[in-house]
Amino acid sequence: MGQYTLETVPTPALIVDEVAVDRNLARMQAYVNQHKLRLRPHTKTHKSVYMSRKQLAAGAAALTVAKVGELQTMAQAGDDLLLAYPALDPARTEVVAQVARSKTVRVAVDSQVAADRLAAAAVAAGSTIGILVDYDTGMHRTGLQTAQQTVDLAQHVSRTKGLRLDGLFCYPGHINDTDPAQMIPRLKDVNAMLLAVLEQWKRLGLNTGIVSGGSTPAAWQAHHITAYTEVRPGTYIYNDRFVAGGGWCQWEDCAATILTTVVSDAVPDQCIVDAGGKTLTYDRSAKAPVLNFGNVREIQGAFIRGLSEEHGMVDLKDAARRPKLGERVNIVMHHVCPCVNLHDRGWLKKADGSLEPLPIDARGKVV
Amino acid sequence: MGQYTLETVPTPALIVDEVAVDRNLARMQAYVNQHKLRLRPHTKTHKSVYMSRKQLAAGAAALTVAKVGELQTMAQAGDDLLLAYPALDPARTEVVAQVARSKTVRVAVDSQVAADRLAAAAVAAGSTIGILVDYDTGMHRTGLQTAQQTVDLAQHVSRTKGLRLDGLFCYPGHINDTDPAQMIPRLKDVNAMLLAVLEQWKRLGLNTGIVSGGSTPAAWQAHHITAYTEVRPGTYIYNDRFVAGGGWCQWEDCAATILTTVVSDAVPDQCIVDAGGKTLTYDRSAKAPVLNFGNVREIQGAFIRGLSEEHGMVDLKDAARRPKLGERVNIVMHHVCPCVNLHDRGWLKKADGSLEPLPIDARGKVV
Repeated sequence: MGQYTLETVPTPALIVDEVAVDRNLARMQAYVNQHKLRLRPHTKTHKSVYMSRKQLAAGAAALTVAKVGELQTMAQAGDDLLLAYPALDPARTEVVAQVARSKTVRVAVDSQVAADRLAAAAVAAGSTIGILVDYDTGMHRTGLQTAQQTVDLAQHVSRTKGLRLDGLFCYPGHINDTDPAQMIPRLKDVNAMLLAVLEQWKRLGLNTGIVSGGSTPAAWQAHHITAYTEVRPGTYIYNDRFVAGGGWCQWEDCAATILTTVVSDAVPDQCIVDAGGKTLTYDRSAKAPVLNFGNVREIQGAFIRGLSEEHGMVDLKDAARRPKLGERVNIVMHHVCPCVNLHDRGWLKKADGSLEPLPIDARGKVV
Repeated sequence: MGQYTLETVPTPALIVDEVAVDRNLARMQAYVNQHKLRLRPHTKTHKSVYMSRKQLAAGAAALTVAKVGELQTMAQAGDDLLLAYPALDPARTEVVAQVARSKTVRVAVDSQVAADRLAAAAVAAGSTIGILVDYDTGMHRTGLQTAQQTVDLAQHVSRTKGLRLDGLFCYPGHINDTDPAQMIPRLKDVNAMLLAVLEQWKRLGLNTGIVSGGSTPAAWQAHHITAYTEVRPGTYIYNDRFVAGGGWCQWEDCAATILTTVVSDAVPDQCIVDAGGKTLTYDRSAKAPVLNFGNVREIQGAFIRGLSEEHGMVDLKDAARRPKLGERVNIVMHHVCPCVNLHDRGWLKKADGSLEPLPIDARGKVV
């Protein structure tokens, strides 16, 4: 690989600024410490063992993963892992049960089918799997719909060999708002829902030791959900155009960018950079009036208006200047998590400006 | 890997039906043969050496690639390769020049900067790179804006050591329409633009041997562009919801699907399959009134209404039935090219129903 610099590394390249990463980790850790919350960062954002270790070293209590391939990978970094996914098929349950032989493994579950299949795998492997009961607090993705359903599943888990009831889980991904005045009442609604469930659980002697929730935008207001014992932000380590655009971080806190080269400037008011949808991800704001897949960091007013697979169409109509052919510019991508997932390797920009390879260890995992 | 079946292969899994692939290849080949066009399929769709070889065996004249990593990979399959990308940085030009030592390599270019950098690399490598001059016929992505600009670049290429002027290139990706009556006049406009340029080139004795254009939806109407000598469809080998939804193929011609497992059914009128944006791609129709990232093949009326990274939210409001937890269903994804790019490996379903690993050889290439 040689000693690449920002001027010589082949583009498009995922560049991660370690100084900004460390600042982001310290800020979130200070917030959760202040509010006596445990931090269980979601590693799907970076998919990197190195970054998981940094999160734990900065004070995180444990780790979250989205799939069992990530569970196996992140078991290299931590001893306490939450699979925030309803694993119920054999390809998943068997891996979970195996990892649970040597690590504390919990799974968020919203069906008796999933609980029973995990239990069978645990019994076969001679391990115990911790269960958090997934409750839908309004996002309507997964999660049981009523308090009584959570009670029924929690009681079922409590009496099932191979499982251990560890508490309650939710993902209130619907409450984000750029205006805290809009977001705080929604947080309080979620809290009321959780407290009502917990009251029933406690009356029945069910274990409420963990109450886990969170996302990056809501993380900074998580203290309004007094029911929480832990939060699971993911994007905060790198941030992106969505988070900065929403006012939940500063633009300089966007630690990850795609370094690109300008490869065409033939069309007026536009140039093409060598990062399309297969590099930046096609994910974008569904509701935004103008399509924007990323901002050009170096040029005020320049942004990615459209994507082909390998072309990024940079809108220069209101740009402060027109970049030259062959010039390198950084794109602050709209959504960093699926962007990182497109790259086998990133580059870590160290405090001294040098570049080191950053493996994306859990990229390309199937289950 | 063992002998997996459609019932046992871990999900989510990219499944490619070889019977449908062979039918799609034969149909396109018959069309181009009928109209005396050369077929230069775009390999970005499948990124597979095996599929490139099948295309050539079915009668394709040559191959198209989108990046130099694909160029290196597909040089294993073919001897005549077009890089449909304005390569101008050293990481690209040096690879192009190296591959051109043993293969016929052409590059579509829209600037003198790119031409000169490719020439310098070719001279250094002792090879010759063929150049197609990229002309913008209305897509406004890359391509020179006027006939005179194409003449200037063609003349520059003709007198530059290391380069060989091979003809004209365009990508009229803007002319697709579900209604052929709408599309044909646009094709004729593109043809008129190309014929006007070619007339100038011929008068000046510039080589017009290749006139290359195309995309899958427009491919079936390519004979209306009489200027073409070759077409470059990509998606036709697999097809997808975009192509079938546009009426440019039948639904049974969608050869690639994502096999998924239903992992949650807790929320009414919905279920969750284990394929989110990191598996299906977030790419979708910008203008569609209802979000749809893919159709469930087995269940009439069921479609992916929303995506999280690892969750596909299946809308069941108008579905013929509700799938069971743990059931396997196939998703016909909206756009197959970026979907394939998310997978290190697919599975080829052979005519006898057996599954074989299908490497996605050119996935993860940087430049």
